[in-house]
Amino acid sequence: MFRLHPTLEKDSLPVLETGGPDVRLAVRLIDDARFPWLLIVPMVENVTELHELDAQAYAAAMDMARRCGAVLKDAFAADKINTAAIGNMVAQLHIHVVARSRDDAAWPGPVWGAGTMQRLDPGEAERRIGLIQRGLGGA
Amino acid sequence: MFRLHPTLEKDSLPVLETGGPDVRLAVRLIDDARFPWLLIVPMVENVTELHELDAQAYAAAMDMARRCGAVLKDAFAADKINTAAIGNMVAQLHIHVVARSRDDAAWPGPVWGAGTMQRLDPGEAERRIGLIQRGLGGA
Repeated sequence: MFRLHPTLEKDSLPVLETGGPDVRLAVRLIDDARFPWLLIVPMVENVTELHELDAQAYAAAMDMARRCGAVLKDAFAADKINTAAIGNMVAQLHIHVVARSRDDAAWPGPVWGAGTMQRLDPGEAERRIGLIQRGLGGA
Repeated sequence: MFRLHPTLEKDSLPVLETGGPDVRLAVRLIDDARFPWLLIVPMVENVTELHELDAQAYAAAMDMARRCGAVLKDAFAADKINTAAIGNMVAQLHIHVVARSRDDAAWPGPVWGAGTMQRLDPGEAERRIGLIQRGLGGA
């Protein structure tokens, strides 16, 4: 039985769930006004490394990462997309896809461990989620 | 005509080149004793984002990332694998696959931007490259 890690739950908002017989994927927005930042969480128990996913689930997760990157780049006029599976703090497998801007709070450094999260106000959260849902075509 | 970015060239050592008709991939070892750290560079001109690769090249690059993660985890008894395409400093598309240890110099922070590179001595570079080549099965 898959349960989203409580830290990921607390720090992000649901955008959509998708997938097929191979794997279900949760796409979530990190609740941080500083960066348009998605998480893709394969809804599989006890997996912490990308190479632990079976080939079909891996391909589905990576395809979603590619689509999220294209959508963020376009919707937020990003200068660069950062895509990463790290998991040093929260081991449950999750893939970050972050829209970076040359004038954002951490550029050119990575966002992980940079400064302090600034929660989104509800209107901006809704706006971002709507843009991403439309970009992903309700996938 | 593909040319490896001079910063990537300077900071890494060749491990192998592989691939097929869809894309050639260069796998290189970052010349830093602190972390067993690979780069996968799709040998395609003028690509800076994962989603700019065509679907076949993307699948080949991500398959190599998966294999490199499994090999590093095993060969270096890693506690965690970190996989990322960032490119804020060097835009030419490159995928990092890093073996992390709970007692390494940057744990639990990311390796990017952490401290100062410590060049490998030639014997250790050769040892790491050999382990990785054997793990990848001469791919």
